[in-house]
Amino acid sequence: MNSYDLDTYLVFRRKQINGALVMMLDSAANSSRISKAMKYSLMADGKRLRPILCLAATEAVGGKSENTLRAACALEMIHTYSLIHDDLPAMDNDDLRRGRPTCHLAFNEATAILAGDGLLTLAFQILSTNNFTNENQASKWLRVLHHIASAAGYEGMIEGQMRDIASEGIQLEIEALEKMHALKTGALIEASIHTGAVLGDGSQKQIERLRIYAKNIGLAFQVVDDILDVEGDPAVMGKGVGTDQTRKKNTYPALMGIKESRAFAQKLVNNALQALNYFDNKSDPLRAIAQYIIERER
Amino acid sequence: MNSYDLDTYLVFRRKQINGALVMMLDSAANSSRISKAMKYSLMADGKRLRPILCLAATEAVGGKSENTLRAACALEMIHTYSLIHDDLPAMDNDDLRRGRPTCHLAFNEATAILAGDGLLTLAFQILSTNNFTNENQASKWLRVLHHIASAAGYEGMIEGQMRDIASEGIQLEIEALEKMHALKTGALIEASIHTGAVLGDGSQKQIERLRIYAKNIGLAFQVVDDILDVEGDPAVMGKGVGTDQTRKKNTYPALMGIKESRAFAQKLVNNALQALNYFDNKSDPLRAIAQYIIERER
Repeated sequence: MNSYDLDTYLVFRRKQINGALVMMLDSAANSSRISKAMKYSLMADGKRLRPILCLAATEAVGGKSENTLRAACALEMIHTYSLIHDDLPAMDNDDLRRGRPTCHLAFNEATAILAGDGLLTLAFQILSTNNFTNENQASKWLRVLHHIASAAGYEGMIEGQMRDIASEGIQLEIEALEKMHALKTGALIEASIHTGAVLGDGSQKQIERLRIYAKNIGLAFQVVDDILDVEGDPAVMGKGVGTDQTRKKNTYPALMGIKESRAFAQKLVNNALQALNYFDNKSDPLRAIAQYIIERER
Repeated sequence: MNSYDLDTYLVFRRKQINGALVMMLDSAANSSRISKAMKYSLMADGKRLRPILCLAATEAVGGKSENTLRAACALEMIHTYSLIHDDLPAMDNDDLRRGRPTCHLAFNEATAILAGDGLLTLAFQILSTNNFTNENQASKWLRVLHHIASAAGYEGMIEGQMRDIASEGIQLEIEALEKMHALKTGALIEASIHTGAVLGDGSQKQIERLRIYAKNIGLAFQVVDDILDVEGDPAVMGKGVGTDQTRKKNTYPALMGIKESRAFAQKLVNNALQALNYFDNKSDPLRAIAQYIIERER
């Protein structure tokens, strides 16, 4: 779509994020079994979409992304905790994640539950690390932390997972499916972009535009996820495919067909790109990521 | 031990805490299944020890406890989440808690895992609610939140639970047992008192003395818990007794005998009371609670 070299950008960002994540888990207790389980899931080969979006949002509003890196890592921890818990036998009972056996298979169920708890708690510990040069930074970080907790909580991501489980085998209307995804994956994606924009000292108008961008790519991401579960290559994806159908999950391809799902995803990405019209070329990474979301193979 | 009327104090505080907790879970989404599960466990008949200690610590340093109530409730949420997860089949597999079927029996396992996640996340959401009149309040709350997250996390409470599970059926030395309890229950009790002291604008010296008090009553609480599991009345306690022995858990009575355990708990309470010598009668609740911990029947 444009000449922007997204691959180089993603490689650079992933390296930066992975480096920071490893350091955050390297403490005196890093030889403990719990920290090993946390590292096992956190340092697996993830896309790092949420932290990258967070950093790219800071860039887009003209902020310094170094200040955002810490928050970006916390968002990846929250995402990883949600994957560990969703994969548990009592939930989706998945065997494979990010190309590896799921945490409860590699360790055991008790350790996986606690590793998820540990990553969620560590995210808030990192978000509240106080190393500011001036006082009004504290209030900004507290606001960001609050927004993330709301998005991840029982009126956001957790409610989305509840609805996802409850709706297995029950046919949903498109609106209910959209709401479920807005909660389950959309809320944290939106919070990631919001966090980057606020920490980069974006204006109210910038933050509002990025919210529209986030809402659209969040849903597009999920639609493509559903398509990949039908058409994807498990070797590339690092997790099983065809599982949605086996579990009688509500998906876009099942509800509207593959071709229509692809057109819907494209429409959402177009909406997202339109919301970025207001921004200069510092938002090129966000533009390219929107395109990447629809073209990705994993 | 003194003429202070602890019962009236505890009844008053519990009512205040329960009233605040109910309001915090009363939102637009309060009819959702997840919020029902969270409420089910949170509003069961708990001792509310951690929030009461938090409020009493604010009082002891001469602060206004109204400002602390929010944090006190967050601490109870973190405690309740840890109970829900510890009770899960993959962990302690308990049937009864606070006089009711455990959350995974009343709802199901997936809901219980998510209800725990929801309470943990809500705690941080509440701790970061920004309704301050001035900026340096924000920095204080961020510090408090960080302390709580560290205490609850993989180098604190979660590590304690890991050690507890790992040590079933393996005989521990007294030092290892003490360290396990310091992590599993001590860390959050210490954080509760620390939170109250900091939010009440206690001096460094006050905070340090209260840390010693906290450390001692935290361990005393656990020693008495072990004793009650041998000698307690299940009808009074609202949970099963004798379970430690069945599970081959390491306990103080098993390691040092019942009589010696009781003497040890008394010594710890004496240490705690000594740490309070520095304080005036505003610390009477803390004094009475130390005594209550050793005399309690549940």
